[in-house]
Amino acid sequence: MNTAHQIAEFRQAGRHTLNEAVSKQLLADYGIPVVRETVLHNADEACRHAAALGFPVVLKGVGDRLTHKTERNLVHIGLDSADAVREAFAAIRTAGGDDWQGCLLQPMVVGRRELVAGLFRDAQFGPVVMFGLGGIFTEAIGDVVFRIAPIDERQALQMAEELTAAAILEAFRGEAAVDRDQLATTLTGLSRLAMDHPQIAEVDINPLIVGADGRLTAVDALVVLTAAQSTPDPASPAPEARRQDAQAIIAALDRMCRPRSIAVVGASRPKPDGFPGMYGCIRNFGFPGNLYPINPNTPEIDGVQTYPDLVSLPEPVDLVVISVPGPRVPAALRDCVASGNQRVHIFSSGFKETGEPEGIRLQEELAAIAAEGALHVVGPNCMGIHVPASRLLTWVNASDISGPLAFVSQSGGHAQDFCNIAVRKFGLHFSKVFSYGNALTLDSTDFLAYLAQDDETRIIAMYLEGVKDGRLLREQVTAINRTKPIVILKGGMTASGARTVASHTGSMAGGEKIWRAFFRQTGAVPVATLDEMAEVAAALHYLPPCHGRNVAILGTGGGIGVAAADSCSRVGLALPALTDEMMQQLRRFIPPAGNMIRNPIDAHIVLLQLELLGPTLQLLAQADDLDMFVLSLHLDWLQNMEAGAHIDKIAAFVAHQARQYLNGKPLVVAWRQYQPNPAIQASRERLEATLKEAGVPVYEGLDRALSALAKTAAYHAFQKTAAGQSTSERQWDN
Amino acid sequence: MNTAHQIAEFRQAGRHTLNEAVSKQLLADYGIPVVRETVLHNADEACRHAAALGFPVVLKGVGDRLTHKTERNLVHIGLDSADAVREAFAAIRTAGGDDWQGCLLQPMVVGRRELVAGLFRDAQFGPVVMFGLGGIFTEAIGDVVFRIAPIDERQALQMAEELTAAAILEAFRGEAAVDRDQLATTLTGLSRLAMDHPQIAEVDINPLIVGADGRLTAVDALVVLTAAQSTPDPASPAPEARRQDAQAIIAALDRMCRPRSIAVVGASRPKPDGFPGMYGCIRNFGFPGNLYPINPNTPEIDGVQTYPDLVSLPEPVDLVVISVPGPRVPAALRDCVASGNQRVHIFSSGFKETGEPEGIRLQEELAAIAAEGALHVVGPNCMGIHVPASRLLTWVNASDISGPLAFVSQSGGHAQDFCNIAVRKFGLHFSKVFSYGNALTLDSTDFLAYLAQDDETRIIAMYLEGVKDGRLLREQVTAINRTKPIVILKGGMTASGARTVASHTGSMAGGEKIWRAFFRQTGAVPVATLDEMAEVAAALHYLPPCHGRNVAILGTGGGIGVAAADSCSRVGLALPALTDEMMQQLRRFIPPAGNMIRNPIDAHIVLLQLELLGPTLQLLAQADDLDMFVLSLHLDWLQNMEAGAHIDKIAAFVAHQARQYLNGKPLVVAWRQYQPNPAIQASRERLEATLKEAGVPVYEGLDRALSALAKTAAYHAFQKTAAGQSTSERQWDN
Repeated sequence: MNTAHQIAEFRQAGRHTLNEAVSKQLLADYGIPVVRETVLHNADEACRHAAALGFPVVLKGVGDRLTHKTERNLVHIGLDSADAVREAFAAIRTAGGDDWQGCLLQPMVVGRRELVAGLFRDAQFGPVVMFGLGGIFTEAIGDVVFRIAPIDERQALQMAEELTAAAILEAFRGEAAVDRDQLATTLTGLSRLAMDHPQIAEVDINPLIVGADGRLTAVDALVVLTAAQSTPDPASPAPEARRQDAQAIIAALDRMCRPRSIAVVGASRPKPDGFPGMYGCIRNFGFPGNLYPINPNTPEIDGVQTYPDLVSLPEPVDLVVISVPGPRVPAALRDCVASGNQRVHIFSSGFKETGEPEGIRLQEELAAIAAEGALHVVGPNCMGIHVPASRLLTWVNASDISGPLAFVSQSGGHAQDFCNIAVRKFGLHFSKVFSYGNALTLDSTDFLAYLAQDDETRIIAMYLEGVKDGRLLREQVTAINRTKPIVILKGGMTASGARTVASHTGSMAGGEKIWRAFFRQTGAVPVATLDEMAEVAAALHYLPPCHGRNVAILGTGGGIGVAAADSCSRVGLALPALTDEMMQQLRRFIPPAGNMIRNPIDAHIVLLQLELLGPTLQLLAQADDLDMFVLSLHLDWLQNMEAGAHIDKIAAFVAHQARQYLNGKPLVVAWRQYQPNPAIQASRERLEATLKEAGVPVYEGLDRALSALAKTAAYHAFQKTAAGQSTSERQWDN
Repeated sequence: MNTAHQIAEFRQAGRHTLNEAVSKQLLADYGIPVVRETVLHNADEACRHAAALGFPVVLKGVGDRLTHKTERNLVHIGLDSADAVREAFAAIRTAGGDDWQGCLLQPMVVGRRELVAGLFRDAQFGPVVMFGLGGIFTEAIGDVVFRIAPIDERQALQMAEELTAAAILEAFRGEAAVDRDQLATTLTGLSRLAMDHPQIAEVDINPLIVGADGRLTAVDALVVLTAAQSTPDPASPAPEARRQDAQAIIAALDRMCRPRSIAVVGASRPKPDGFPGMYGCIRNFGFPGNLYPINPNTPEIDGVQTYPDLVSLPEPVDLVVISVPGPRVPAALRDCVASGNQRVHIFSSGFKETGEPEGIRLQEELAAIAAEGALHVVGPNCMGIHVPASRLLTWVNASDISGPLAFVSQSGGHAQDFCNIAVRKFGLHFSKVFSYGNALTLDSTDFLAYLAQDDETRIIAMYLEGVKDGRLLREQVTAINRTKPIVILKGGMTASGARTVASHTGSMAGGEKIWRAFFRQTGAVPVATLDEMAEVAAALHYLPPCHGRNVAILGTGGGIGVAAADSCSRVGLALPALTDEMMQQLRRFIPPAGNMIRNPIDAHIVLLQLELLGPTLQLLAQADDLDMFVLSLHLDWLQNMEAGAHIDKIAAFVAHQARQYLNGKPLVVAWRQYQPNPAIQASRERLEATLKEAGVPVYEGLDRALSALAKTAAYHAFQKTAAGQSTSERQWDN
């Protein structure tokens, strides 16, 4: 209260920062351990206090306009006598001139370890807490981590673990480990401070000194205010209003996903060759409801009566698709408002994405119309909505089979490509696909809210470039990810989120580091390509949970051991040595000649005599220190057995029998095939088809298999930990 | 001389380290800036010297047995008066006890920046120089880099650039930039010291303090000796002897690669199904010379007379291939010696690679026989030699066409697989392939020496797990790489080279960091998989040199711009914005609707109307700030034009016409294809075949294309710099 009042006064006075004394008091109010200090106005007073405090002491000039104190000779450290204090006081008084308002007396805090902590506001995610190695080398060393606020104690302590130089937080060279309670209090204090005071843009505590006893002391702090004229974070609507909005959006999306009627504005006669247009796409995919072509220039399209505009339609429709040139979209959108059609997909492009002034203006016009008419708009500049169960598709060549996977994509190209990849490689079909382009009204968070309550959807994949409300996204993903794994491909990591800021804290926060915090905090699974997205989604969908990071690999071929070890190390899996007991048991039916019983197990005989494969898997699966299994098949070699028919036998075994030996643990298949031999390729395609049909993930190469397993294991590990976390987060389970 | 004598004395006395005074003198002898210091034996002397030096000073105990000085209270800093010096002297005298030999007086060196420099010996590469951030947080922060000795000034300064915190070496907070001459002198001095004194195992200079004037001072140094009983680095043979050996090995390999006669010990009747054995492989591939099966148990194999042993042969052969069970290999090798056959490939396994005592013993037996008989052995435990021009193959299903690529592989599986990948994906054929397994006598360095002078070989690919003589490998690769690019897949990065050491320097040097230094120093191109190896080899072989890192991408499809920017950023290429002038020129024939003229250029029309593609490429290729080009083809979309025939037209244009527009700059093609449509797959296969035939590298996906271009550009950039480097390295050009 008092603090808020002081902040307001500083802003009204046109100040960009709080003075040091007020800054420290503010931090102290939030439980952050600041150095004891007193503001004094004459030298006698200073000497008296210094003597009471004990020498040596530090004396600093204080004043609302006093910045760059070191350079202006306003900081005197190591003062070890009353005389020294008196002399320093005079020097500071002179150097400060008219800006001087007093001197700050502090004990001299000593510590070899210097940390930094702070906060700043990100354009997408709002307040972000920072922690890392401090001192004058903070930027040069760059060992800092971020978390999106609010954070709890557990997340604060995870920040510490994540530092490259985490070792210096432990007992170090005769000094005690950093006080973890104090550290958690400091970082969660910054988080609370950010949430309470939107007028505070940045806080920078550097150094945060660690004493020999492990106790923390903030000896210097900079608090930067938002510009007085700038708006604080967009005020969230009251919870009840937000809930009602969300319910309205979910209801609208549900009608758009299961439409009984669709109108296409700008419907054209589908060309026999090339892209058939929106109307043609929907018709060709077999949409069973009423489909109205709107086109004032022709009375019919392929014998179907057209309408000149939406108002002329015999009924309001569940979904309007707009496919006219960009400049004519505002008129079409006004027609939606006039006809009471509130659910719209704008396919057309030529708006903000062009970066041209006219496109940006047009999009602003659309935004105004949509707001006025309370429209729910998917797009513009996007492929729209694909729902196999509703026979709804606004592009070509997609599967009409329904499945457990949903995809929310800012890119229309990625929407089409990812559907093809997931279906073709893993037989993973889709529940709902949203390509939403420029996100005029509906953004990723709206689609997520819908998918969270959609029973058909079990796994959610997302391609994101940016997001309007990063904090909401974080809350949603954290909650939904508990039961429906969320896999995210973040495009534009390198470019996003950068902005100009004044402090250490802000200047070190690239968009990439904040998105990395997002993934750490939500447990969403990050992937780098569409292929990897499908690979991970398949593992998450088809496999039982992984209970650890230990993998055993069965396969054959030179170099496999070294390559497997390198791959595991890259993706963070362990390839534990088999126990002596395990080796002895395996040796009972695997002869030594030509068969290496290590991990990977390079045992030709187990792949040639399939009656050995089950017992081998069974033995391995009973080991407590093995959590998952890869069968690595070198098809060029296996093709030599029975002209490829042996590959079919392996496929059949894995598809139909292997699981009974696995003790509930995951198994995937990885294949290698290099020879330019059509017969081997045909064997490979049969293998993939059999396994896909049986729901066994099958990967091209060991690297992809191990990477997918690693990310799946990380997902399950996160959820296991998250299950025991604070109630403030757990509310999202409801 | 004097130093060597002192070192010898310390070792004879059973010491593991030099004392501080001797250590500093040694470093000073090599031009390393050590703190001025004097050893004093009484307090009066110390006070006198301190007064002359100027206060404050540092006083340390010195003695051959005095280690852990700080903990033992033998270091007193900041002594600012004669009394303080006298007091400290007495305290050190007492604390040192019988081990005390004197006190070291130093000026108090002050600097906010602390570095570390050192050296240690790696098992594979010999002496290695280290440099990084120093002080008490050296290990925790881990910002250190390595170079294999010897190094020159240029390499020393590159180490500085490579630090994460390189910024602190520049002018920093009012202090001067680090004196680069002194830095180079320090690091090259350590390098020379290592070369001169094999008895020195490690040197650790921490901290190396940077003064406000940027000058360096080593205030503390630890010199660790090799154990007195340990041998120094294996003495290299005299240059002349080494040259003769190398010539003998080259001559032997040349006969093995172009044999007129081969004997196969352990020849068996090839089975109709499965692996045909060594004799069958060589015969089936059409070897045109004399091929002698050795088998005492059958008089003939498929009508060809066998011989009971090598001695019975009518002639000595150019190559003996041994393919009998492991325990019988020693007898076969003795038969080689007895029959005067010195060139041998041992296919058999069951030796050191098993990790079992019996296998290790057998390999030692082979080594003794080979040394005694001066044999040249490829293997054991390997696939041996493949030379298409000689119709020589010891496995199955390889191309019989000769080409520019050589492969040296420690793994037999990788040898077979890589041949298939390079030929199938890029039409890259082979000159010589060596699979050499356990490297009984012939190691990677021997094959390299042969390939260096082999006119047929233009590019060399290597799969290495370890190497016997890392320094020789470094010298060779540096030299050969100038004219024949060398691409290396290093297996077992995470496991190799680790050993137990006593200092900062050694403990921070994992095998991975030293191999990274190897790549930095030699300019060899590192790759992570066999696929990438072929992708990079194709770019190096087919493309003209890249003169920079700026790429322009032409393609179509949503998300391509963001994905391309992310990919470029990952691999270290730049995607420069097109100039206004360039955009205006392109706009003359590329209409704005549906065509984004940025970089990537998302211009459908250029791919649809191929008469526009030439002029577009021509305009781009004339820009000084664009160095290379990627044509990104979305085949799922392009298939819609003329049922795939348009893809053929694009392929024909790129294969036969595009190069005339490119101004000598590189162009590659990247394709994406996701739909499960056999017709598109067929179009893709035709595209790949046409481009392969024309020598245009074609990649699956933009990532692979950009990564190959980035590595090619890095290769050319390195060679451009290397061309102007010191003569000591340039001698290898001869």
